[in-house]
Amino acid sequence: MATAVKAKGRSAGRKLSMSGAAAPAEPIPARAYAARSATSPLGDFSFVRRAPGPKDVQIEVLYCGVCHSDLHTARNEWKMTQYPCVPGHEIVGKVVSVGKKVKKFKPGQMVGVGCMVESCRTCPNCRAGDEQYCDNEITFTYNSIDHKAPAGSAPGTQTYGGYSTQMVVDEDFVLSIPKGLDPAAAAPLLCAGITTYSPLRHWGVKKGMKVGIVGLGGLGHMGVKLARAMGAKVVLFTTSAGKVADGKRLGAHEVVISKNADEMARHANSFDFILNTVAASHNLDAYIALLKRDGNMCLVGAPEHPHPSPTVFNLIFKRRSIAGSLIGGIRETQEMLNFCGKHKIVSDIEMIPMQKINEAYERMLKSDVKYRFVIDLASLK
Amino acid sequence: MATAVKAKGRSAGRKLSMSGAAAPAEPIPARAYAARSATSPLGDFSFVRRAPGPKDVQIEVLYCGVCHSDLHTARNEWKMTQYPCVPGHEIVGKVVSVGKKVKKFKPGQMVGVGCMVESCRTCPNCRAGDEQYCDNEITFTYNSIDHKAPAGSAPGTQTYGGYSTQMVVDEDFVLSIPKGLDPAAAAPLLCAGITTYSPLRHWGVKKGMKVGIVGLGGLGHMGVKLARAMGAKVVLFTTSAGKVADGKRLGAHEVVISKNADEMARHANSFDFILNTVAASHNLDAYIALLKRDGNMCLVGAPEHPHPSPTVFNLIFKRRSIAGSLIGGIRETQEMLNFCGKHKIVSDIEMIPMQKINEAYERMLKSDVKYRFVIDLASLK
Repeated sequence: MATAVKAKGRSAGRKLSMSGAAAPAEPIPARAYAARSATSPLGDFSFVRRAPGPKDVQIEVLYCGVCHSDLHTARNEWKMTQYPCVPGHEIVGKVVSVGKKVKKFKPGQMVGVGCMVESCRTCPNCRAGDEQYCDNEITFTYNSIDHKAPAGSAPGTQTYGGYSTQMVVDEDFVLSIPKGLDPAAAAPLLCAGITTYSPLRHWGVKKGMKVGIVGLGGLGHMGVKLARAMGAKVVLFTTSAGKVADGKRLGAHEVVISKNADEMARHANSFDFILNTVAASHNLDAYIALLKRDGNMCLVGAPEHPHPSPTVFNLIFKRRSIAGSLIGGIRETQEMLNFCGKHKIVSDIEMIPMQKINEAYERMLKSDVKYRFVIDLASLK
Repeated sequence: MATAVKAKGRSAGRKLSMSGAAAPAEPIPARAYAARSATSPLGDFSFVRRAPGPKDVQIEVLYCGVCHSDLHTARNEWKMTQYPCVPGHEIVGKVVSVGKKVKKFKPGQMVGVGCMVESCRTCPNCRAGDEQYCDNEITFTYNSIDHKAPAGSAPGTQTYGGYSTQMVVDEDFVLSIPKGLDPAAAAPLLCAGITTYSPLRHWGVKKGMKVGIVGLGGLGHMGVKLARAMGAKVVLFTTSAGKVADGKRLGAHEVVISKNADEMARHANSFDFILNTVAASHNLDAYIALLKRDGNMCLVGAPEHPHPSPTVFNLIFKRRSIAGSLIGGIRETQEMLNFCGKHKIVSDIEMIPMQKINEAYERMLKSDVKYRFVIDLASLK
């Protein structure tokens, strides 16, 4: 009897499963804001997300941070934008449903999506957990070729980002947002947070080290908070005397006005690591000279016009180095979120409705934001 | 009685010591070749070395390699030359006498002197054995302020290098030349050897790694030999098709003509480390693009005119870095010499008499040397 019941149970289970496969999930309608051209403001846009597959997580987007890359892409400043373009890769939302093979997430859970939604998964970098350095093809969250676009989409359809009400993402590219963090203020962790956390970790920042953060914007203010929480002595470099108090409030032990040559000279040969978050072209030598022997300055901003060429003597005379770093891998992004959960670190944000995005872009260009705009997607519902 | 003898012995010892101090060693006359101005050819020059102190080693110079820095300095191309200038920092010679506190060397021993003859010895870099990165003051072998100049010298007298018959150097800046190495061909190890060995070691070159060497000159040909002996897969980059066979003879597994874009592209994202020995301004991006994730390119040549500014995206997209490196510390220089002794590595040289130095400089400027001139100081005696 017991055996018969078991057999029946198994059979019923299989039937349910097969019936699920036989009736595929429907594509998900989404509302969004999109740029239609490099020069037009972002406006209302409707599209459908793919029908969630067995490994997919369907997410109702609650908040999306506004990264400077969004603006660069919307306005085709990197000359590779496909239109319509729905930006947004600092996404926090609630799980609506999960595919039957999804193991890590459940409906109702608070989750995040960052800059990537897929990679090749087979190259040495992907296998090492550094999907952001995939040797083959990363599918970025927006403006990448969408190999999983809904059936019937035009060939080469691009991915659409988080300025939208719904996301459908493979669970391996979905992050868990720790309880206790404000979900809106956690959104910028998915790009600004990991972009600063990853190099700080990679270059071994810890107690006993002196760390510089160049620039106090969306990235820089996260860099200050994270480096401080890692135990380093943190010096913030800013061109703006008006940011001194705020830099200290955010966690900097010292704030140096980088235009003041005497202040800069006092720090010569003293830094273990400098995280340079400034994307505008500027004189790198002024910072390289502040590094100790074997010190590294890591750039996380890519300037539209090249920096003046750094002086080779500055590198040679202390075996200093200059590097670059791109976001972080998925495993490290989860590690960063957990670190932020433990240390109660989120971004300083200003919340806006979707309809204010064009105005927010203009204010970003004037650095008029402390320190990240976050879109409340409820404004689109 | 025994006690009395002992006491006598001690007293006699003290007396001898005091008598030694009372009759100081004499300054050492030296013959040399010097530049008298930026535009005059090098010519005969006589001067005196300081009287050897208790820690000094007096060396009869046998051979001195000709480094491109000699030419830069003789011609004041770095705008800091004091005249008369006696260049030369790839020095091999025989110990003539040692001060009474010298422990490491004995008369008759084959020794070397490289680019430095003193440093502060107290800063963290000196204490770590990286005297070349001294935070205070390095005394370079030539054209530095000579704080130990013979009594009666003009204030600020500069150090004189190895284009001379005699050296007097503190034992802590003297190296031991392994038996079994040809002393003349070992001379270039003191600068070209350590300048390439130190970064190869610092960036952990070993079996299983793919290493690029850019440029086949005095430094590059040492880089090829050393990287090969460390077990790496070695690819030499040269602009000159005429150097392919020689590059392979020296140890390169493969030689790439860097002007050939297709050949370069085949190596994209594949190098663990690139040692760039080219001092002329050139496009660094072409090499940076060949580095794997976390790969580093180390520059050991400083161009007179800046390199084109390297593209930040190239650094960001694989967390690549660019660094510089300067010679090596004294401990590491001895390690390098021992490594060369073990692997029978010396420089490929062309021996010249001192009187041919001006002609040698002209040939160096045309890269017409395989791969290092070495001066035979017997020509001055």
